[in-house]
Amino acid sequence: MKFTIDSRCGKARAGRIETAHGAFDTPAFMPCGTKAAVKGLEPRELREAGIEILLCNTYHLALRPGEATVASQGGLQKFMGWNGPILTDSGGYQVFSLAPLRKITDEGVTFQSHLDGATVKFTPERVVEIQEALGSDILMPLDEPIPFPPDPKVARSALDRTHAWWKRSKATKGALFGIVQGSIVPELRKESAEAIAAADPPGFALGGFSMGEPAAQMDEMVAYTTSLLPDEKPRYLMGVGMPRDILAAVRAGVDMFDCILPTRMGRTAMAYTTEGLLRLRNAKFARDERPLDAACECPCCRHYTRAYLRHCFSVDEMLGPKLLSLHNVHHYGKLMKEIQRAIRNGTLEKGIAWLKDQSISANP
Amino acid sequence: MKFTIDSRCGKARAGRIETAHGAFDTPAFMPCGTKAAVKGLEPRELREAGIEILLCNTYHLALRPGEATVASQGGLQKFMGWNGPILTDSGGYQVFSLAPLRKITDEGVTFQSHLDGATVKFTPERVVEIQEALGSDILMPLDEPIPFPPDPKVARSALDRTHAWWKRSKATKGALFGIVQGSIVPELRKESAEAIAAADPPGFALGGFSMGEPAAQMDEMVAYTTSLLPDEKPRYLMGVGMPRDILAAVRAGVDMFDCILPTRMGRTAMAYTTEGLLRLRNAKFARDERPLDAACECPCCRHYTRAYLRHCFSVDEMLGPKLLSLHNVHHYGKLMKEIQRAIRNGTLEKGIAWLKDQSISANP
Repeated sequence: MKFTIDSRCGKARAGRIETAHGAFDTPAFMPCGTKAAVKGLEPRELREAGIEILLCNTYHLALRPGEATVASQGGLQKFMGWNGPILTDSGGYQVFSLAPLRKITDEGVTFQSHLDGATVKFTPERVVEIQEALGSDILMPLDEPIPFPPDPKVARSALDRTHAWWKRSKATKGALFGIVQGSIVPELRKESAEAIAAADPPGFALGGFSMGEPAAQMDEMVAYTTSLLPDEKPRYLMGVGMPRDILAAVRAGVDMFDCILPTRMGRTAMAYTTEGLLRLRNAKFARDERPLDAACECPCCRHYTRAYLRHCFSVDEMLGPKLLSLHNVHHYGKLMKEIQRAIRNGTLEKGIAWLKDQSISANP
Repeated sequence: MKFTIDSRCGKARAGRIETAHGAFDTPAFMPCGTKAAVKGLEPRELREAGIEILLCNTYHLALRPGEATVASQGGLQKFMGWNGPILTDSGGYQVFSLAPLRKITDEGVTFQSHLDGATVKFTPERVVEIQEALGSDILMPLDEPIPFPPDPKVARSALDRTHAWWKRSKATKGALFGIVQGSIVPELRKESAEAIAAADPPGFALGGFSMGEPAAQMDEMVAYTTSLLPDEKPRYLMGVGMPRDILAAVRAGVDMFDCILPTRMGRTAMAYTTEGLLRLRNAKFARDERPLDAACECPCCRHYTRAYLRHCFSVDEMLGPKLLSLHNVHHYGKLMKEIQRAIRNGTLEKGIAWLKDQSISANP
């Protein structure tokens, strides 16, 4: 993996990351192809939306279809028909959020599959092996998430275990990023940044954000954490987020993002537009002949009206979720392109004009 | 509406029908856009599959979003983004299959909406008005379906009412077809063909088929019914069917078809291929790197493997239903093009080569 920074604006950086399956411009947004599919969207549709890298989920893919099956198909990229880079998470987060009866030891975490109750064990070594079998371009190590708000004792032991597991994490293929944890505690973030940087990974992930902390606290702690990291390595803010979160984090020097929001919001009839967030189930759209967003050139905005999209949701036609997901991904793709342009033009501090008016804090 | 027959092969005809919203070649297959959407597929995808005309459903659209809303949006074509002809059914069939507490009188049929229990009344005049408001190109009159197997008394009274209603059916816009009923009783079919033809409609629908009768009986009765109809008018076999049914009916002189099968089968993981019907949930496809159908050039077959499609169904990813629906509609589109070509080349009696080996009678 090769990371080149070609422009800067304040602490923000624009550049490019090259992987074995192709390159992507940064700052980059990765839609979630959790189970080897971005819900409802084909790879060619993602590509047209300006998407250059996807995130897939190790936990889900290890259970179904299993990494050996994916490997037998030539890897994730070939399996899902995505001709580009893929980042896989470690699956640790899902073990803690989805799997019942999990047992954590220094060795790793043993849990029951949420699908059939089968006993599965993830160790730091095993999750890297799985990701290598999947053919991932950027891999994540196993870590133990810290709940928010953090209990000091739990945070301490989870961080120690995360760092001990990190020492055992080695990849022979792909780029294994380190994950800096530490919740909203500056001392823990500093300690974690140092512990992770000791192994000189090709990139750093910022974990444990968007866990319920206020946006201002997140912005501050993200900025503090990036200040602790080597300048020349890419930084990935895991699971974040809303357009405003992304803009704030880019300004703090973050290069990569993933979030389920554009597709999840799309499936629940919520559209990101340059006029703000639209709730398409609202009756006021029943005869609205305008496109979702007059400033958008995506296929959804070119071909369909708000009235038609609302109708699709009213009568449970799957075209509704598909078309709003497509639009939202285009919206995020456009946001990243404009952020990249603003960094190159030295105008990032002015913000992104059409983002200013967005009711981005609206709770869906 | 203008119908031109340009080639014949036995009783089969190939030609073209021109409507206010464009023309389509015959024999034609119409996918079902029941609620103003062909489930999961965009109009541009249907067009690429060789589809030139859609069917939409009067009952569903009258309830949601209501014909006045569709009319306010410039009609169905503009509303759903389909730049081509649309045929609407009368909604009568759904009144009988979906609506509770229906009451039939000579005046019409009063029923409760299956959605909210609201009382709605369909009369022969009203269903034509609704279809005119929808902006339909080809309209269907209200009829009373005859259950299969037919009870002689019920069949008699339903047929009388259907013919009485037909006399009251007048359209000022679009082409109002007549519907010939009569179940599997030759005398009733003959009587019905004469009663309907008395009004000299621009086309004839053959109703009451694919109701559970054996395929051979359907083939025979379809052929008998077409023999009773004027040669120069298009014939539409309602709700039929399987590829074999279509081929048999074309040979009997039928010009138009609609059926939910390609999309419903697609949603339930069944794919029509030149090797037969594939059940994609079958474990034998888990590592099958072949496309669904090596002889198909649709986007699903160009971009995805059987293994990936099976995975999508295994993990409930909506791409599975979408991609199989897309493929199946392409399969039907290709079938109609090959049937048209065979009629023009005078080879229809030899059959369609790749259809011969299809396990078309497989019950999904």
